[in-house]
Order: sequence, then C-alpha cells, then structure tokens
Amino acid sequence: MNIFLSADHHHHNPPFEILDGRVVPYAETPQRVAIILAALAEAGFAPPIVASPATIADLAAIHTADYLEYLANGSARWQAAGLSAPVFPSAWPLPGLRLRSDCPQAAAGRYTFDLSAPITAGTFTAACSAAGAALAGAAALLAGNTSAYALCRPPGHHAAAAMAGGYCYLNNAALAADYLARSQTSGDATWALRSPTVAVLDIDYHHGNGTQSIFYERNDVLTVSLHADPAYEYPYYLGYADERGAGAGEGYNLNFPLPAGIDDAGYLKALDQALQAIADYGPRYLVVSAGFDTFAGDPLGGFALITEAYRTIGRSITQLGLPTLIVQEGGYALEALGANVVALLQGVSTA
Amino acid sequence: MNIFLSADHHHHNPPFEILDGRVVPYAETPQRVAIILAALAEAGFAPPIVASPATIADLAAIHTADYLEYLANGSARWQAAGLSAPVFPSAWPLPGLRLRSDCPQAAAGRYTFDLSAPITAGTFTAACSAAGAALAGAAALLAGNTSAYALCRPPGHHAAAAMAGGYCYLNNAALAADYLARSQTSGDATWALRSPTVAVLDIDYHHGNGTQSIFYERNDVLTVSLHADPAYEYPYYLGYADERGAGAGEGYNLNFPLPAGIDDAGYLKALDQALQAIADYGPRYLVVSAGFDTFAGDPLGGFALITEAYRTIGRSITQLGLPTLIVQEGGYALEALGANVVALLQGVSTA
Repeated sequence: MNIFLSADHHHHNPPFEILDGRVVPYAETPQRVAIILAALAEAGFAPPIVASPATIADLAAIHTADYLEYLANGSARWQAAGLSAPVFPSAWPLPGLRLRSDCPQAAAGRYTFDLSAPITAGTFTAACSAAGAALAGAAALLAGNTSAYALCRPPGHHAAAAMAGGYCYLNNAALAADYLARSQTSGDATWALRSPTVAVLDIDYHHGNGTQSIFYERNDVLTVSLHADPAYEYPYYLGYADERGAGAGEGYNLNFPLPAGIDDAGYLKALDQALQAIADYGPRYLVVSAGFDTFAGDPLGGFALITEAYRTIGRSITQLGLPTLIVQEGGYALEALGANVVALLQGVSTA
Repeated sequence: MNIFLSADHHHHNPPFEILDGRVVPYAETPQRVAIILAALAEAGFAPPIVASPATIADLAAIHTADYLEYLANGSARWQAAGLSAPVFPSAWPLPGLRLRSDCPQAAAGRYTFDLSAPITAGTFTAACSAAGAALAGAAALLAGNTSAYALCRPPGHHAAAAMAGGYCYLNNAALAADYLARSQTSGDATWALRSPTVAVLDIDYHHGNGTQSIFYERNDVLTVSLHADPAYEYPYYLGYADERGAGAGEGYNLNFPLPAGIDDAGYLKALDQALQAIADYGPRYLVVSAGFDTFAGDPLGGFALITEAYRTIGRSITQLGLPTLIVQEGGYALEALGANVVALLQGVSTA
C-alpha cells in the first residue's frame, strides 16, 4: 500500500483553541503525524511518499476562489491590522446578517464556523500539503493501485466549499473524490460504458459536514457517514438522518447518526448497512475519511471502539472490492493512534 | 424628565468576553449604571423610578418564543450538561448549516452571533428588567410626557428577534418603539387621522443591527442609525448604506456609516441629515438608542466626540418637537460616562 505524506503539515501548529468559552490546548497537533509514521514504520509499511502540494487550480475544483484567497492571505491581513495571531473570529454572519468581509475580523467569521480552526501564518502551506497527499493517493488509484493511504494533516472533512471549522481548512477527501469522479475511464470496456462514480465513506467520530455539503447536489459521488448524532455532538448543525441530498443529488447522501457510547458490535452493524448502500450504488472508487476518534479512549469522542475494531473495519471495507483511498481525518488518543491506524491499514491490506 | 431604571441589571455580570481570540474583561459592567445614577443625582435629576420587569407577553411582540425560551433556560441547561458557566457558543450555523438546536451548545450558536453576549444565571432577569424600563419610558410618553430616559442594562440594539450579541439580549429600544407604534391614538384630532408612527434614531458607535432587522419590513417605524462603518467595525455584517428596508419597509431604514476618527463637526453634520429624514417622515414619537461609545476616550470606540457634543445632540433631537424616549445603549469610558449622559439629557430637557 502506497502511503502519501503531507510533509509540510508542521507549518500548522496553533497554540490553542476555544471550546464552550474556555481556552484549551490545540488537540490537532503535529505529534499526531509523528506517532502515525512511527507506528507504520514499526509495522513494516513502506516509507511514505512525500506528495507535492496541491495547487490553487487543484483546490478550485471544490473550493471557492474567495475562500482560497482568504486562507492564503487571511493571517497576513489579520496581523497587518494589528490583531494578535492566530486568526480567531469573534462574530459570525448568522441568518439575517450579510455575507460581507470588508475587514479581517468579518472575513474570519464568514469563513470559519467555529473556534477550532484558527489561521496561522503556516496554515495554508500545511493545508495545501495535506490536499496534495490526498490527490496523490487518488492518482495512485487511477494508476491501478488497489489501495492507498494519505496521511493528511490538517484533516479535511469539516471544510466546505467556502468554510473552515473543526481543525479543517481544505477538504482532502472531497478533493480526492472529485478528482476520481472526473477521471476519464480507462481501457476497461465494461467501466467505459458508464461515468466514473465514487463513494465517500466517513468513519470519523464527527459528522463530515463539509463533505456532505460539497456533494449534496451531485449524484456522481455518494456520501455515507457514520458519526455521533449531531443532536448531542459537534458539528451540531448537520449530519441528521433526514439529510439525503437535494436536486440531482437526492438520495445520494446517507447519514447514520449513532448514540453515545456505542461499542464495536453496534458500530460494525451500522457499518454493514453503510457498506451495503455503497455496494448498491456500485461506484468505481471508494474514498474513506478515516477518523480514529471513535476509539474508546479518545478525549474528543464518546464511542467505545477498541483497536481490533479498526482491523475489522478495514477488512469489511476491502470486501467491497473497490480501489480504496484511506484519508486521515481525526483521532486524538495519542497513546493508541498509531496502533489504530496500523490496524485499519492492515485490515485493508490483508483482506 | 422621568427616569426609569432597570433595577435588576446587577444580576447580569459576566466574568469575561472573548475578542479576536483573546479572553478579556467584560466591558459592559454593573458599574456603568452606578456611575450614571450618581451623575444624574449630582446634576439634580429626580430619583429614578424602578420599572416593573417586562413580561414574556411584552417581549413576544418582537422576540420569538423559542428565543425567549432559550434566554430564560439556556444557562440552566448549559450547566445541567456539565458545561462551565457562563454560556459561550463555540460553533455557529453559517449558511449551508441547519438552524437546529438539539443541545445546549447548538442553541448557544444559533441564538448568539458573537462572543460578547454570554448567558449567565441572572441574564434573563436583568434583560427583562431593562426591557421593562424601556416600556415604562414608552408608557410615560403615551401618558403625555415630552421626554423620558430609560436607564437600561443590559443594552439592546444588537439583539434581533431571535439573536443576542454585542452585550444585548432583548431589544429595549425596539420593544419601546413597537409599543408606541401599536398604541391607540389619543384625543388629538389631527393625529387621530393617521396611524401612530415612530422613528428610532440610533446614535451608538456601533450599528444597531438588531433594531434594523426587527423593523426592516415595516413602514410604521422608521429606523435611522449613525455609526462606525461596518466595513471596518463591529458588527461587520450589517449597517451599510445600501440597506434601505425591504417590502413594505423599503425606504424606511437609513444608515449613515461614518469614518474612523470623526469629530464633533463631522458627526453633527451627519446628525442633521438624519434628523431631517426623521422630520420628513413625520412620526408621532421618537425613540433614541443612546450609546456614548462615540466619545473620544471610549475603549471600544474610534470616534472623537467630546462631552459637549452630547448636549448639542440632545438639543438638536429636541428641536424635532417630538415626545422622545432616550434608551441607554453602550458607553464604556467610565470616567466620562456620567458627564456624557447628563449632557445629553440636559440638552433634551432644556432645548
């Protein structure tokens, strides 16, 4: 299995986030990547391939030009205005207010829906590196690989076309899925008869609101997510079961909101339903947004999965028989993160 | 001049707010009221009248039932969920996300557009007291008084029908204006020929986004605001000159966004234009949202008004010849706040 690394991730390292009115340490740290790399090496995986950063043209496939401009220059403008880095919004354009961004503070609120995605001087560099890793993984599938792993940091699934949040700035998995969906058919005579289609399976603890939004009106990318019910868990405002897509995309978004404390048995049962829906859709490619904050000990999670569950998840996914790209999302239980990633990838490799 | 006091204001005293990513002391303190009361007494104004708190039925005239329920119970629910008081949102339903509020954190973001309106256990009590003072002031005008002052705390002009922000929870001035607009005509034969109409003049440093929103589609309340241009100043997302009302209210909202550093001369020139627009409208009553953060030394402001400017403003307003209710909004230069309020009220009283 090829592993693609976002080598510039360490340029993004915010000092803190703000949660429910409290300043707390930033949980999405560079250490996460170091831990995963060490575990992969120890488990005998091949060394990672350093991916080229995504270009603006790459990113424009799913992100708006004004948002990309903000990510690239928002930190410099913030500091030029005499504000203390990093960029944290303090006012948001709720319904009834206008989507204007005439000054740095207004832009911050317009483009960031929470207080866990501050923009530092190095954030855009890191985010482009992560997006590049995901796109390199997608390219590996097009080149004939049956599986690949993109070790992306920062993660991506909360990022929408023009919105950061939840440690996410660019939607790595969505960029990869869109790239695969737009790919030309190869020589395979059967596949050439239909459009390339892609399924995204999101197994992060939190709903992938950005991914859902990006593909909500498309039928060439099926989005399926298992996550903590937004009725009690972040991101709160999206991820309910009645969100099934709109327009051409109606019926092509599937949410499995799960109860707090769910264990391996309950989770794997829901996963089977999700995988059946993907099989029914019949995609050519699968992209997995792989978060590990479903682990029992995760400080940001509330599920009860054990390490071996990730091996089972990997095997189950692979039984779909699809070229599969695993994209790293969340996971904050540092003591188990390496083992959990290894278990998933071994499940995928050996199924 | 009758003065109406929101006597329960001290129940609201948040320990801090969060501004551009920094935790800072809460600027809108109970001390503000104490300072104003002392200055009024020293200047020879009659003792304030303690107003009855507004009832839910009073508030429902402009605020939604779900929002009032949130203000009344949000703090208790937050603490019952094990979260640290006071209530601070950390995620907001930007466009593309859903207005759901299934848990305390989601409700906080849905109903609060910034980080300067935390909900404490006593916030709703204080806010009802402030709204009651404004309504008592309005009732005084209906009873024949030519002027009244409602010493409201917390202030109100950033609060919309279902949204808190900028130290504001209930829109005191809007409640008073709506009450006056709905009042039955009195014995005056001329006035009885037309509907009661009201003008709201907002002279706070910050745009009164809540007041604008509440009356945006109504033509029985003209809203006029002088304020720092939202292109560079809070509340950023409303207060531009091209916002002129909608539907039946088209043409009945007037914004004067002003440049940073404006002095008495520049400000009073804009005020004259605002007062001419009000005179042209021909209302029966005037409600003034009186903020004093336009003062040169205000820590939250960027204008350069001196104390005597407020006396001139008071006189100019009074020359409209309308029964006038002055409603207290912002003003954070504690050393000058008392003198500035006295100057305005003396201007109104002696014009």
